[in-house]
Amino acid sequence: MGRFINQRFKALEAYTPGEQPRDMQYVKLNTNESPFPPSKGVLEAVSEIEVSKLNLYPDPTCKELKAAIAEYYSVGLENVFVSNGSDDILNFFFMAFCDSVEHEVKFPSISYGFYKVYAELHGVKYTLVPLNDDFSIDINDYMGNDANIVIANPNAPTGIALSRKDVEKILCKNKDKLVLIDEAYVDFGAESCIELTKKYDNLIVVCTYSKSRSMAGARLGFAIANEELISDLEKIKYSTNPYNINRLTMVAGIEAIKDAEYYTDNCKTIIENREYTSRMLEEMGFSTTPSKANFIFAKSNKIGGEELYLKLKSRGVLVRHFSSADICEYNRITVGTKEQMDKLITEVRNILKEKEC
Amino acid sequence: MGRFINQRFKALEAYTPGEQPRDMQYVKLNTNESPFPPSKGVLEAVSEIEVSKLNLYPDPTCKELKAAIAEYYSVGLENVFVSNGSDDILNFFFMAFCDSVEHEVKFPSISYGFYKVYAELHGVKYTLVPLNDDFSIDINDYMGNDANIVIANPNAPTGIALSRKDVEKILCKNKDKLVLIDEAYVDFGAESCIELTKKYDNLIVVCTYSKSRSMAGARLGFAIANEELISDLEKIKYSTNPYNINRLTMVAGIEAIKDAEYYTDNCKTIIENREYTSRMLEEMGFSTTPSKANFIFAKSNKIGGEELYLKLKSRGVLVRHFSSADICEYNRITVGTKEQMDKLITEVRNILKEKEC
Repeated sequence: MGRFINQRFKALEAYTPGEQPRDMQYVKLNTNESPFPPSKGVLEAVSEIEVSKLNLYPDPTCKELKAAIAEYYSVGLENVFVSNGSDDILNFFFMAFCDSVEHEVKFPSISYGFYKVYAELHGVKYTLVPLNDDFSIDINDYMGNDANIVIANPNAPTGIALSRKDVEKILCKNKDKLVLIDEAYVDFGAESCIELTKKYDNLIVVCTYSKSRSMAGARLGFAIANEELISDLEKIKYSTNPYNINRLTMVAGIEAIKDAEYYTDNCKTIIENREYTSRMLEEMGFSTTPSKANFIFAKSNKIGGEELYLKLKSRGVLVRHFSSADICEYNRITVGTKEQMDKLITEVRNILKEKEC
Repeated sequence: MGRFINQRFKALEAYTPGEQPRDMQYVKLNTNESPFPPSKGVLEAVSEIEVSKLNLYPDPTCKELKAAIAEYYSVGLENVFVSNGSDDILNFFFMAFCDSVEHEVKFPSISYGFYKVYAELHGVKYTLVPLNDDFSIDINDYMGNDANIVIANPNAPTGIALSRKDVEKILCKNKDKLVLIDEAYVDFGAESCIELTKKYDNLIVVCTYSKSRSMAGARLGFAIANEELISDLEKIKYSTNPYNINRLTMVAGIEAIKDAEYYTDNCKTIIENREYTSRMLEEMGFSTTPSKANFIFAKSNKIGGEELYLKLKSRGVLVRHFSSADICEYNRITVGTKEQMDKLITEVRNILKEKEC
């Protein structure tokens, strides 16, 4: 670090995004993107006419976009917050609502790596709650009403989901603390808790366009919660970067909501491909978690996690490997098209065959 | 504020962006946008092919974009930081390098309103340094080596610029403090301090695509500084929202640099229109500051600032009025096309005529 930075950031360890190597053309199954392009409506909306208006600021209130989201999820305009990706919203959450005194936070010890980074960035005291041995979350660990709670549902990188009922149990027992449910992967088979925001003023549901809506490259996320929480988030956004959603993303985001059928169909395909790939991997001796996300979390009984990751990479298939001890035998494999999955399966088979020789 | 927000944000007053009313079609001279569309290269680069790749994350290292900027400004790749608009960078600056103990900050009492918001957001102790009576900055007020310094050059909303020599004098006398020069408006006639970043490790120059490069709607800003400062900024970015520049903005940003001639020509036109409009206003009894920006800061001897603002608005011309006592007799008028300026001049003339009757 340089000589001018604040002391408190000296030990900060930033998040490491999935690698984006350029040395060859990879089958990219490492950052949980959708393999499908955005819908026709999105392609048409980002027109030359829109691009020619880039000299003008976007609407900072994001009114039309919020209205589209509100209508789709049957909530009020005042219940929707939009920002530059769901990471941006998570960052605001840790900044606005958590601290090291009154508003500590807890989240599963194995989860999205960014939660820890946000806690450290904002000097928030946090507790890592261990998972069960099968990587599932024990809701009894979250009944204390003693700290804000952040849960990815489905969880990452395990893909395991809590039921809406279980989330409601947590909400009931934490009425004076905030519960953030990160639903980045919810559209691939889990139950959304959005409707619970009408009943619980301590719930924030965070969603993204990056996964099921094929817009990782557009940077758009949203949160749904009661009006007070949304208005607090707006205040933080208007104190950092009020125009953080660009004009093109704005129109794309509106059209994507209108094209819901296309995206729902894509999710169905991803679910099919996930089940197919899990089955194939299990037949080759892998154990997998019961994923409700657009990725598979898998461990082989024949090859180490890191070795498999490296060998797949050398064969042009990128998956995500995490080096922390508790999950280092696993790889997180994004579910892509059938062709991509077959390429993965073929290469895994070849690697295991070579290993046997 | 809601019952869950951190105590320290309860008194926070967010920034107020320029209004975007929709009740009628305005000649919009209130947010310092360029009246010209992005260049041909930008229009072509945001193609359907690019939009169809929105399912993939952008390159978080922004390598190509940084390379284009680095080449244009004759600095190294390691000297360039890019983020979601220059506001985003200002936010990171206050967060990373300023505090309430060792790294206080000072800036002119009349300047970009967001500096104060960032200071308050991050709990940074700040000093507002008064301007001279003619709204110019007295560099002798910045010779203390006692606090980080933030100066918009040209300053806003006055448009008055410091020479590069004067900035260098400040740098020399503040070697253990950071000096941020916000060059949002530099391309309209002021001297950039980018070359000084090679000589001074305590200088950060912040720039934007929103003004001279006609991309306010795309959200892109950059900073140029020595490698250590850039690397600190990267660490903060990677701890908040690593993918904050979207794919389309990335390609647009690269092409805009290549089309430098188009933008330089536009700046020349804006400068001509500024000088023309200032002259016309002065002929009608206005006093104006010697603006080197794409706006005019003007006060009439016949009508109050707020009254003029409201009357212009009712006639379909939006300008920016600030209510703080020291500048409430002024309006900040964005310089647009010749036609827009003529409309403004005509309406001002009509308003003054009515007033005389």
